[in-house]
Amino acid sequence: MRIYDNPSKTIRDQLCRRPALEQASLDILMDEIFEAVRKDGDRALIRYTEKFDNITPQNVALSLNEQQAIALRTPKALMRAIDRAYDNIRVFHAGQVLDQRKETVEILPGVTCWRESRAIERVGLYVPGGTAPLISSALMLGVPAQIAGCKEIILCTPPNKLGAIEPAVCYAAAKIGAKKLMCVGGAQAIAAMAIGTKCVPGVDKIFGPGNQYVTAAKQMAVKYGVAIDMPAGPSEVMVVADETARPDFVAADLLSQAEHGTDSQVVLLATCNKIAKAVNDEMSRQLATLPRKLIADKALTNSFCLVLDTIDKMVNFANNYAPEHLILSVALPEQLATQVANAGSVFLGNYSPESAGDYASGTNHTLPTNGWARSYGGVSLDSFIKKITFQTITQSGLRSLAEVIVPLANAENLSAHARAVTIRLRNNL
Amino acid sequence: MRIYDNPSKTIRDQLCRRPALEQASLDILMDEIFEAVRKDGDRALIRYTEKFDNITPQNVALSLNEQQAIALRTPKALMRAIDRAYDNIRVFHAGQVLDQRKETVEILPGVTCWRESRAIERVGLYVPGGTAPLISSALMLGVPAQIAGCKEIILCTPPNKLGAIEPAVCYAAAKIGAKKLMCVGGAQAIAAMAIGTKCVPGVDKIFGPGNQYVTAAKQMAVKYGVAIDMPAGPSEVMVVADETARPDFVAADLLSQAEHGTDSQVVLLATCNKIAKAVNDEMSRQLATLPRKLIADKALTNSFCLVLDTIDKMVNFANNYAPEHLILSVALPEQLATQVANAGSVFLGNYSPESAGDYASGTNHTLPTNGWARSYGGVSLDSFIKKITFQTITQSGLRSLAEVIVPLANAENLSAHARAVTIRLRNNL
Repeated sequence: MRIYDNPSKTIRDQLCRRPALEQASLDILMDEIFEAVRKDGDRALIRYTEKFDNITPQNVALSLNEQQAIALRTPKALMRAIDRAYDNIRVFHAGQVLDQRKETVEILPGVTCWRESRAIERVGLYVPGGTAPLISSALMLGVPAQIAGCKEIILCTPPNKLGAIEPAVCYAAAKIGAKKLMCVGGAQAIAAMAIGTKCVPGVDKIFGPGNQYVTAAKQMAVKYGVAIDMPAGPSEVMVVADETARPDFVAADLLSQAEHGTDSQVVLLATCNKIAKAVNDEMSRQLATLPRKLIADKALTNSFCLVLDTIDKMVNFANNYAPEHLILSVALPEQLATQVANAGSVFLGNYSPESAGDYASGTNHTLPTNGWARSYGGVSLDSFIKKITFQTITQSGLRSLAEVIVPLANAENLSAHARAVTIRLRNNL
Repeated sequence: MRIYDNPSKTIRDQLCRRPALEQASLDILMDEIFEAVRKDGDRALIRYTEKFDNITPQNVALSLNEQQAIALRTPKALMRAIDRAYDNIRVFHAGQVLDQRKETVEILPGVTCWRESRAIERVGLYVPGGTAPLISSALMLGVPAQIAGCKEIILCTPPNKLGAIEPAVCYAAAKIGAKKLMCVGGAQAIAAMAIGTKCVPGVDKIFGPGNQYVTAAKQMAVKYGVAIDMPAGPSEVMVVADETARPDFVAADLLSQAEHGTDSQVVLLATCNKIAKAVNDEMSRQLATLPRKLIADKALTNSFCLVLDTIDKMVNFANNYAPEHLILSVALPEQLATQVANAGSVFLGNYSPESAGDYASGTNHTLPTNGWARSYGGVSLDSFIKKITFQTITQSGLRSLAEVIVPLANAENLSAHARAVTIRLRNNL
């Protein structure tokens, strides 16, 4: 990775920008797919699966019996790992239930307002396949949906080489209480969940990672009135390292992000050039024995080391960059953590690798990329809930409020708004 | 309004769809405006203001002194109304601070995870002008931003006929602690906040209502990496009325929504035809003396009464429709409220008009329209905050997690993820 040693503010600002993506406009293709799914329903899903995945799915929708039968083929050790990951994710997200309590406030005598949480009723989870099925994504999306109490949890995942769903995904889907498991992937799966077909129920919100086609389809789904979890971009990690960091650990963390895809970006923020060089050396060594070496190597060309001589500059850079994952391999990570303003998930100390959060510690791995951490948090229980406000007002409460409502409504030229109040007080003013 | 008396399920489903909007694609115009603002900055803002608002603004950015001087021209009675609305909104939203507390969970010995809230640093509030400045929107957006502790609160509003900002908006802006007040409206204001100009700072998230141009510009802002509060559509209210409802109150509530714009939709759900007719008669009577009669009258052509003979059917219809505002003018509103699954804000009983929530009771009036209440709540403190997850793991904690991480990473073909863990345990396995 290229090392920038205390570059100017201008260069630092440039480095905060993500590498430009090849953003071929997929709008025309998406229009075509959504229109075909609207018109031909499940037949369009099979057609696109044959076209894009080169396979005819055995079934689009699996029955619960089929799902359970396939799930049992999951290797026992993997089942146990899924069970434990499920438990940890559940424990962490269950803690968020407290934020969903009813909040009642008496604003004035006779004016009582509150918020109540309601689960989003129908949610669609997308679990990518590609080189391997992302079992962990099924858990990360499904566990909070289950805790929220979403009535219908639908899971779509592309067929494997046999035209079926991987046993481990069936096992995870059963654990999270997915009502329907669909063997369909790509943009056509997103279109199906947005519009609804005979096999695939339409949903209110779509969650999950995916390639550029899935991302474009999720954007199109919004035009169909369906919400999405967050805007997506390539995965990324930033490691902040001082002289207490272990170069071999840091290199392993950077490579674990780089192996995701050729468009991943990894960034090392180091307190001195020596660390940057040591990490670079370690990366070369470790890269040599990595199965996904070619992918990681390509990702490193988008990546860089930045040496900065003050903690303030490091914190500023990290907050401006707003990384998806931020690893603090420094002497006092707790202290630095308090200064983090923009990040998806933060890992403190030398024994908190990103892959712990990716799979097992319980935090969610569906996180904002591409600078979206400035405005978005990761997926959580909140993502599966909306809060509704309620109010109940007595006639005397309304009389107090009238002194506020009437002048404001009149100032906004909305006299029917004022009248809705005065008509209720007519007999008593 | 047309009355549908216990129509078929098919008709009921059709009635849940909103009237089709004239969705002339504004993409080309938006591309042009954003590109001009990117290239010419503030000069483009002045040019578009002259073109669209037919006025040259006195200043694009007001200094704090100018803002305060103008604010003092607000009529005293209106100032007092703003003060009281501000206080009530503040009390209600301050109750939401509890949801922002740090949540620490010890997942296993040596594995500690938590979430912390961070304010979105730079937020842009859009306050429409048009026939009158929406002072209340400045408060509804600004108060939660202020409580959240957003570092920079920017407010944009179009110039009035004198090319300046209305005193009451200046007064509200000062109360909410807006750092910069900009005299610019429309799509160009949104582009400026998305991109940043010399006068208008770029922001991380844009909030606020607006016409179709503002809505299209907000969608474009997302492509520039800037978040928005929620997708927008015309305002709407649904009133559920049984024989305990007062037809004159119900008619006043329906008209208060209808006066917003010709594309507003108002819906009456009545338990019997007699109520529907009585409300219709009252609406005709009240409409005659309404200053915005023509607007309201046109909105009523998009609107309807639906008579349904069971409470279950009413609840189902309301939840399928997912109204922005839902008024329950029934004998036992608390009971019905528990069954509400999808709505922006709910008003219980005969003395809780929507205009109380629009201005004064403390709940937020920035709410999901067009069926988005299925997946979105209204603006709240949460809208100005993102939650970051943190974790700290000891070496022995990591050793426990390794049994989960390694099998899952291998099943997903991500061996560098596994190695980031095993390398840390090498000396001790």
